[in-house]
Amino acid sequence: MARWQPGTRERLQSTALRLFAEQGFDETTVAQIAAAADVTERTFFRHFADKPEVLFAGQTDFTAMFTTPVEQAPDGTPAFDLVRRALDSAADFFPEHRRSWSRSRQAVIDAVPALEERELGKLANLKVRLGDTLRAHGIDEPLATIAAETAVTVFHLAFTQWIAEPEERDFRTLVEERLAALTALVHPGH
Amino acid sequence: MARWQPGTRERLQSTALRLFAEQGFDETTVAQIAAAADVTERTFFRHFADKPEVLFAGQTDFTAMFTTPVEQAPDGTPAFDLVRRALDSAADFFPEHRRSWSRSRQAVIDAVPALEERELGKLANLKVRLGDTLRAHGIDEPLATIAAETAVTVFHLAFTQWIAEPEERDFRTLVEERLAALTALVHPGH
Repeated sequence: MARWQPGTRERLQSTALRLFAEQGFDETTVAQIAAAADVTERTFFRHFADKPEVLFAGQTDFTAMFTTPVEQAPDGTPAFDLVRRALDSAADFFPEHRRSWSRSRQAVIDAVPALEERELGKLANLKVRLGDTLRAHGIDEPLATIAAETAVTVFHLAFTQWIAEPEERDFRTLVEERLAALTALVHPGH
Repeated sequence: MARWQPGTRERLQSTALRLFAEQGFDETTVAQIAAAADVTERTFFRHFADKPEVLFAGQTDFTAMFTTPVEQAPDGTPAFDLVRRALDSAADFFPEHRRSWSRSRQAVIDAVPALEERELGKLANLKVRLGDTLRAHGIDEPLATIAAETAVTVFHLAFTQWIAEPEERDFRTLVEERLAALTALVHPGH
């Protein structure tokens, strides 16, 4: 078995996802994943702290994808522009070649309540962190919380549509469509 | 023990809430609640299907409070006006005299993960039902889903603030403040 090679992490992820889909998340062991990916369990644990981490690795990156462009915006940038920056950055994170992985991942999560809870917790945490970042950037309450909730809601709805079959439009288009709906909702005459 | 008397349901609720706060939700039995409220367990179960129902009774009423005013709106009412109708109706449901009950109830829920999940599930269900009602009233996608999410988010944020100490403003004022923030977010110049 190769001790290290480029792409081991990605191979472990795709192998794990295939096994989760075939035989269930709870029924799949780390030993099976490692064997099917032709690495040792030790190698698995160099990449992932535990089995769920295969699905949830990158939480810090995920949050930073929203918060970093807000932190880097010029002082005085209006809240809606900060939301747009965060969503633009998020869209970069979901290129076409990730769609099929995201679809398969969601199917695994939807089948296991504990994973669903963790996914919802991830979004709740993101709202809190983004709200903190907006306040640190000079956005007052209650606008900061409304902006954070709105950003994460638009993201989540765009993501849900992006992975729905047979959707083919790209992530950014779906974000724009939802932002336009929000604008139409609040100011139907404009 | 009185077999029936006016206010039994409310007395069971306030007694249960006091016991949950004093000794914990999991540690409190239906027998204790009934005894402390001076009724039989049989009487408790005439009012509530189980112990959590003391906290979650009225789910149907809760959902209808949002959906009924939408169903009854004239055809062609813009989506934002439908959202306002739903939120106005919700505000009627939280008069001043309910604030202290709502604060105590939330403290119990926050302490028990299973209750927190159920509360979140209640809001998730409300989003789905309100979205269905908006679509049935002629609002297209993705506007209907955005409107439902927005309504429930504004409701939830207003509610969270309403029960925060030492908030004293009424529910409707807090809803209006958050709707104004949303309007300011989407159209900062207006």
